[in-house]
Amino acid sequence: MSSRSVSAAHQTPLLPKDHGHSSNAAIDKAVNLLAAFRDEGSSGVGVSELARRADMYKSTAYRVLEILERNGMVERVGTCYRLGRRLYEIGHGPMNERRDTLRDSLIPFVVDVHQHIGETTHLAVLDGSDVVYLAKLYGYRQVRSPSRVGGRTPAHCTAVGKALLAYERPPKAQKRPVLQRYTSRTITDPTELDMQLARIRRSGIAFDDEEIQPGLRCVAVPVFGPNGIPVAALSISGPTDRIDGRKHTPILRRIASSASTLLVSRAPSSSQHSRR
Amino acid sequence: MSSRSVSAAHQTPLLPKDHGHSSNAAIDKAVNLLAAFRDEGSSGVGVSELARRADMYKSTAYRVLEILERNGMVERVGTCYRLGRRLYEIGHGPMNERRDTLRDSLIPFVVDVHQHIGETTHLAVLDGSDVVYLAKLYGYRQVRSPSRVGGRTPAHCTAVGKALLAYERPPKAQKRPVLQRYTSRTITDPTELDMQLARIRRSGIAFDDEEIQPGLRCVAVPVFGPNGIPVAALSISGPTDRIDGRKHTPILRRIASSASTLLVSRAPSSSQHSRR
Repeated sequence: MSSRSVSAAHQTPLLPKDHGHSSNAAIDKAVNLLAAFRDEGSSGVGVSELARRADMYKSTAYRVLEILERNGMVERVGTCYRLGRRLYEIGHGPMNERRDTLRDSLIPFVVDVHQHIGETTHLAVLDGSDVVYLAKLYGYRQVRSPSRVGGRTPAHCTAVGKALLAYERPPKAQKRPVLQRYTSRTITDPTELDMQLARIRRSGIAFDDEEIQPGLRCVAVPVFGPNGIPVAALSISGPTDRIDGRKHTPILRRIASSASTLLVSRAPSSSQHSRR
Repeated sequence: MSSRSVSAAHQTPLLPKDHGHSSNAAIDKAVNLLAAFRDEGSSGVGVSELARRADMYKSTAYRVLEILERNGMVERVGTCYRLGRRLYEIGHGPMNERRDTLRDSLIPFVVDVHQHIGETTHLAVLDGSDVVYLAKLYGYRQVRSPSRVGGRTPAHCTAVGKALLAYERPPKAQKRPVLQRYTSRTITDPTELDMQLARIRRSGIAFDDEEIQPGLRCVAVPVFGPNGIPVAALSISGPTDRIDGRKHTPILRRIASSASTLLVSRAPSSSQHSRR
């Protein structure tokens, strides 16, 4: 990433005390200008309008936009500005590129699960104590659920989350945040969760039985990359009376196994898919 | 694009001259710190590590992080920092929320098209002179194509793009950027494009015949929201010898028509879906 490396200026205290207020104000103004793009981040907004929205003089806005432009946070288009590539890159680093690649590889398996089972199908990865959904497919009679593409839910109360937490090495029970309760069935006791994760590790299948939303049941299987580390999980979810673990498990296992085989075969080096 | 022209406004310094260097440096430092999170934007990084990566004193990093925290651009987690909600909101405003809602509504139709036709299926919206893909489904034998979820391609050389450009009111021929060439079949003459768009407006169906990638053919239909304005397009794409416009058009029309009906029925007010 552009190592705008050190100017000699850094030798002297970085933000001189007497300039403190100005630094403060400059960063505040920069953030306010970026936030002022609102809906038009990609289409472009004129300086007068940005200045008006950010409640500053047009001349100030110009000056700050110039600094932001030099930093790649905004771009000039004609007489307007739009948000710059670097801003998007900051929220969307190499991690997201890996996720895009993973989604690209696994979409056919998500489609396959949905075609075979016909219930809402998810593809998710672990991110800290949350899962992030890379894909979600459903038909016309979908059941409302808290997942959405790009969104996150706590791992401890979802089948996809537990399918991934189960393989964390070393187990992170100690480092886990408080297990928040979502329904009367949410597991909030770390010891109980660890016991369930051990069972999931042995069986290779995870369930969420109304633990994040009453009436919603999910079944998930991990998809392994090289080194036997799961990189994603596939799940189906639906109303408790339609989701039958024993019935759906064989199909899920078979498709997840094919997906794992593909990931291992595609891995250019053993390190490629081993990091989440 | 980057016509680094100097505006007259720059004459009156809004940030007093003697603070200019400091403001500059403060914003540069803030951007460098944000970029220093790299992969760990959501998991958290310690201040020493951030300072090392951004090549600045730890004390400076602290000070700048404090200002960024007050602005919601970073958040403290224990002794670490992670990227803040406001940063994500800046790149992901109300526009994206509308897109998420649109995707949520239209996924069943994307699934339906893929199940009926079996070729790569896209859902896309227009954004300026580009299309942005909200969904992409394909089976195990996918054909490589330049589209990816969240990514963009120029509208003038894709079927989804033309299906949407055709309904722009008033036609934006004059305001269009140079029509870039991607293959020998890309339409680069604005008059020719406008003639094709007029035909698309009459027929309700758009084609891309190897205009963005040799060997790739696409067929797209618009999905209309209230007020008769298209809000998205559905397409199928695949190798030229497999994609037959006449054969696939009736199914695409039927599914897009159901999708339009749903969007109109769901619109809480007439303005909800009328803006792209």
